[in-house]
Amino acid sequence: MRKIKTTKGGVTAAKGFLAGAVFAGIKASNKGREDMALVASEVPAVAAGVFTTNRVKAAPVRVSKAHLKAKLARGVLLNSGNANACTGPCGIAAAKALAAGTAEVLGCATSQILVCSTGRIGVALPAEKMEDKLPDLAARLSAKGGLEAAKAIMTSDSFAKEYAVEVRAPGGTFRVGGMAKGAGMINPNMATMLCVVTTDAKISKGTLQNALHHAAERTFNRITVDGDMSTNDTVLAMANGAAGGASIKSGTTDHSLFLEALNEVCLNLAHMIVRDGEGVSKFVTVQVRGASSLQAARKVAEAIANSTLVKCAWAGNDPNWGRILDAAGYCGVRIREELVDIYYDGVIAVRGGTAAPTPKEKLVAAVTPDKFGVTVDLHQGKAFYTVYTTDLTEKYVELNLSE
Amino acid sequence: MRKIKTTKGGVTAAKGFLAGAVFAGIKASNKGREDMALVASEVPAVAAGVFTTNRVKAAPVRVSKAHLKAKLARGVLLNSGNANACTGPCGIAAAKALAAGTAEVLGCATSQILVCSTGRIGVALPAEKMEDKLPDLAARLSAKGGLEAAKAIMTSDSFAKEYAVEVRAPGGTFRVGGMAKGAGMINPNMATMLCVVTTDAKISKGTLQNALHHAAERTFNRITVDGDMSTNDTVLAMANGAAGGASIKSGTTDHSLFLEALNEVCLNLAHMIVRDGEGVSKFVTVQVRGASSLQAARKVAEAIANSTLVKCAWAGNDPNWGRILDAAGYCGVRIREELVDIYYDGVIAVRGGTAAPTPKEKLVAAVTPDKFGVTVDLHQGKAFYTVYTTDLTEKYVELNLSE
Repeated sequence: MRKIKTTKGGVTAAKGFLAGAVFAGIKASNKGREDMALVASEVPAVAAGVFTTNRVKAAPVRVSKAHLKAKLARGVLLNSGNANACTGPCGIAAAKALAAGTAEVLGCATSQILVCSTGRIGVALPAEKMEDKLPDLAARLSAKGGLEAAKAIMTSDSFAKEYAVEVRAPGGTFRVGGMAKGAGMINPNMATMLCVVTTDAKISKGTLQNALHHAAERTFNRITVDGDMSTNDTVLAMANGAAGGASIKSGTTDHSLFLEALNEVCLNLAHMIVRDGEGVSKFVTVQVRGASSLQAARKVAEAIANSTLVKCAWAGNDPNWGRILDAAGYCGVRIREELVDIYYDGVIAVRGGTAAPTPKEKLVAAVTPDKFGVTVDLHQGKAFYTVYTTDLTEKYVELNLSE
Repeated sequence: MRKIKTTKGGVTAAKGFLAGAVFAGIKASNKGREDMALVASEVPAVAAGVFTTNRVKAAPVRVSKAHLKAKLARGVLLNSGNANACTGPCGIAAAKALAAGTAEVLGCATSQILVCSTGRIGVALPAEKMEDKLPDLAARLSAKGGLEAAKAIMTSDSFAKEYAVEVRAPGGTFRVGGMAKGAGMINPNMATMLCVVTTDAKISKGTLQNALHHAAERTFNRITVDGDMSTNDTVLAMANGAAGGASIKSGTTDHSLFLEALNEVCLNLAHMIVRDGEGVSKFVTVQVRGASSLQAARKVAEAIANSTLVKCAWAGNDPNWGRILDAAGYCGVRIREELVDIYYDGVIAVRGGTAAPTPKEKLVAAVTPDKFGVTVDLHQGKAFYTVYTTDLTEKYVELNLSE
């Protein structure tokens, strides 16, 4: 019997976590919809974070990174409608003030509060208006508030993104749950990906950080809609030990199960983000194998997944392998075209760098569904890498003509 | 008085060069339009070439590179309708056979013929049908045939691309002319950029190769429509000394004028290619300055010019500087966001990483014309780099949904 089962509740699936949301009116056009959320642990928790590698970092990213140096955390304050990015020293002050305000209503130190923002870039965050709403927000906190919080962080998302699992481990049952908002669709303005994961497992801060890094590498870092990377991308995790089980140590079965559960939560949220990309009509898994190194496999996979031409062809049900081979050729990896095989959902399109004798209608049938895979075998080694991506449609362009 | 003046005739502007075209029926759908062209020098010439750096190289690229090792060249055979790429050993044989056939009708060695192809990828080149037409093609050669040849290499181009200059140098008057076909618009199939330049200046093979490399670096290598790089991109030059002037030596005024003239021809052809991109509505010059190195300036400029989001915003007349700053931030260069200034056509949009107090309508007015510039000053050094690019429109996607 499988030890990991899906469960309900998102960020409040794990014991001892509360969530809620309020309407603060951060963006004028966002009439009435909740735009500020809080996820809090009833007891101090350990926390970990993975952030955008963009050199341009939003104020909440800088503040959360600093606060993560504290031993413990109590909550994450999130808002939609304003990214608090490219806002200079005032933006930093606003993020800090909101953390302080949240700490006050939760009764903890300011450094125990993490902050996330998503929305418009370069516009001052209406921090005072938001601070005024913090007592209301604290009053809304509930052990059933996961979905409410997930809804409040949506921007161009068409559905709230939640996922949670329950794990029956030898050291005791625990839960891992999360919520996320979309990336790479970018309306309004910027493609921020935010994710908060909570768990009632007992785990050290260092082990949690390593696990989160490992999971993000294999999930959120492998999705791409348009190749652009936001100034605000953030994945945070809190573990409060409220399940009451044994502490999870590296190398144990409990640890393996924890990694697997965290990965499953992150992967499901990542796939939801890709599927919900604006103007997206297809979900495409690009696997590169037979590479001489992981780095080479990754470069080739990302070049294919980010090629405008490749993505346009997918939107048009065109099994255009020439564009795929071309992208593999220009990405800087020393591929040998005469060795390359390309498959669409297991149907061979290219063998040894030239057209395989597969009838075109079979290839068209392979790329016509709204979900398919492309496999590129470089035949140069044993490394492989997988990227999850989408097609590029006229609707995407239309939606991104302006904010 | 300026010593360099524009003149007519494209590849046949220079003395001793002939050109012509015939219809060979290479692509079934291309009814009646000339699809095979020849540019020939009446006397043996020195030749140089710059080729795609894609690891996937079309057969004509491989054959031309090999033939350029010969001391002299007599002509370039070009075809549209078929790229002869990803065609394996048969493709190489076809390219060699066509060079041999052309050498026969011109009465020279096979190694003195260079070949270029553009069109569909992965389809066998109908070499025999083409070889049958070579005597007709030789008979069509004329000192006024430049435009005819420029038309025959068009694929998705909407106009033939020619440019030529006459140079009054101390060592004698000479001419530099060229023709090109478009890149980055990619219908049918692949975005090949081809260019042939001819000159009647007397110059050594080595000096010509250096000059062509220098010019291509500053012109063709600085244009991008979609960031994809073709398997067939080729720039060739032939110099036959027919002007009768002194030999052009490095470090002389003649040499400077030659470099300037070659650069002017290449830059004008490169700009025509960008302007003629399918679905393109804007020509955008992206200049990055204040970089710590040329490499850094180039990376930032190319990241901006290739960002799907930045290009969509331009199509929508949206002066969205957040997307520009975001692209600069994720390209791998260690920029410091608090130092960055951004201008649209001289109008400041960002100062020190945050919004400048320019009214939005002024910024919208700056990005509304069909031609404008974006300047990004990193304030980290003195290096600068310029890229010529376009917006990304719904029409581009529509045109690239399938071949």
